[in-house]
Amino acid sequence: MKVGVVGLGLIGGSLGKAYRSAGVTVYGQDIDPLTTQYALMAEAIDAELTDGNIRECDLILIAVTPVQAVKWFKENAEKISGQTIVIDCCGTKRYVCSHCFPIAAEHGLTYMGGHPMAGKERGGIKHSSDDLFRDAPFILVPEHADDMELLMEVKGMLMLAGFGRIGITTAEEHDRVIAFTSQMPHLVSNGFIKSDTALADSQMISAGSYQDFTRVAYLDEKMWSELFLENRDYLTKEIDSLIGELTRYRDAIADGDRGRLEQLLAEGKKCKSAVLEKCGPAQINGERN
Amino acid sequence: MKVGVVGLGLIGGSLGKAYRSAGVTVYGQDIDPLTTQYALMAEAIDAELTDGNIRECDLILIAVTPVQAVKWFKENAEKISGQTIVIDCCGTKRYVCSHCFPIAAEHGLTYMGGHPMAGKERGGIKHSSDDLFRDAPFILVPEHADDMELLMEVKGMLMLAGFGRIGITTAEEHDRVIAFTSQMPHLVSNGFIKSDTALADSQMISAGSYQDFTRVAYLDEKMWSELFLENRDYLTKEIDSLIGELTRYRDAIADGDRGRLEQLLAEGKKCKSAVLEKCGPAQINGERN
Repeated sequence: MKVGVVGLGLIGGSLGKAYRSAGVTVYGQDIDPLTTQYALMAEAIDAELTDGNIRECDLILIAVTPVQAVKWFKENAEKISGQTIVIDCCGTKRYVCSHCFPIAAEHGLTYMGGHPMAGKERGGIKHSSDDLFRDAPFILVPEHADDMELLMEVKGMLMLAGFGRIGITTAEEHDRVIAFTSQMPHLVSNGFIKSDTALADSQMISAGSYQDFTRVAYLDEKMWSELFLENRDYLTKEIDSLIGELTRYRDAIADGDRGRLEQLLAEGKKCKSAVLEKCGPAQINGERN
Repeated sequence: MKVGVVGLGLIGGSLGKAYRSAGVTVYGQDIDPLTTQYALMAEAIDAELTDGNIRECDLILIAVTPVQAVKWFKENAEKISGQTIVIDCCGTKRYVCSHCFPIAAEHGLTYMGGHPMAGKERGGIKHSSDDLFRDAPFILVPEHADDMELLMEVKGMLMLAGFGRIGITTAEEHDRVIAFTSQMPHLVSNGFIKSDTALADSQMISAGSYQDFTRVAYLDEKMWSELFLENRDYLTKEIDSLIGELTRYRDAIADGDRGRLEQLLAEGKKCKSAVLEKCGPAQINGERN
């Protein structure tokens, strides 16, 4: 098996390392030639992905931002073999899928959207590792969810990189859920750390919940801005919802209204119980993002 | 050494188990006789703390809410020996210390405020464990911070229960910092989980940051209401600050203003870097709360 990886950042670099660890040949390319050189030296890839070898790939994973992914696919579609499966790894799915499905159809290619559910606080190939995806879910967004043979083939290919579960959903549902489960924690963490109190001398006065809330505050503002703006409808809805909740707590606290505050907290407790009952504990993957 | 524990919930039960594991005799009491019986059967305590043995204690730890702690200390001060060190374990310090310092002075007792920086998502003695405090910080709020001999003695006593570091601060500074590092994560998590999206079918579409943001959503509304209201000045300031930040992101996203959004995210990234530089990574204790 041969895999092509487009974009050698944290995700692309880790995909390369994971596939190489599994004995798969990996061709990779990055917009920055120095990064490609680094990937070769770090043995994240076997060789550069070129017009000469791109048709050899059984699988091509596009691990760049949505706009760049669409651009790359459009420019390279005619070089890709009809036997190759192409999957992007972007953090939002509506934009990339709605543009890539027609490109694939036009060129007779097999493409589906994807989202590897793992990451790290720090990006770039130097933080990549071959076990980033161990046991993590990979979410697939196929144009048609009924081609079970294809989906099983893709599942087999992804599990070689260490993914533990394959989820199948629509671009719409992915983006609706991801606004809440991933974009919000990153956004809130980034805003939370801005409090003046963050630089208090007494940071020892903290426990695990503080660690939780500040862990992902450091983020790549260019990538996340693109992802946030592509998902602006769902994301603003979630931000408004949280601001509304916080305002209710704030007013009950400012008013010294203990009954109302207890009720608000009891409601949240009940929601948490309902989530646990329906979904079980939140997924915890090897690496956390 | 003999330790008295007042209040046998998660904290009191864990203190009892930790001290018993270290070979210390533990007397405990709870407002609920069944809990005291449970603690005896669970071997979290050796015997009930009574008027008959309270004078034997070298250390008394009061592990109930602030109002109850003050009430207990007032009612029991005259039974306590002048040789005993009394420390409360409440999550806010201004209220409890400002009431307990005068009680101690009136009765010639040695008292200081305290806050063990560890917890669990679920309370109650049945979730207590002898390693809850392993390597965790214990924050002390003495009336006078210059009695080094006393502080060293207390430090030795606390380390027996597994605490890793002893921090000394004022009630004011404790409450200012705790509003941000602990009360806010609990409040925001409790509000965050209320989003309709929390019950989406596709909870697999999540990674570590979602786990982080929902972990402490389940909380004891009675205890936390008391703690939040006692700290209402600092806490409302932090809530207002976060609502302000979220509103700025929200508006930039709704306006589709990528430059502004990138700048807001870059500012948060810079704050996170500054915190890391000044304070190092946030404390992670054995158990996280």
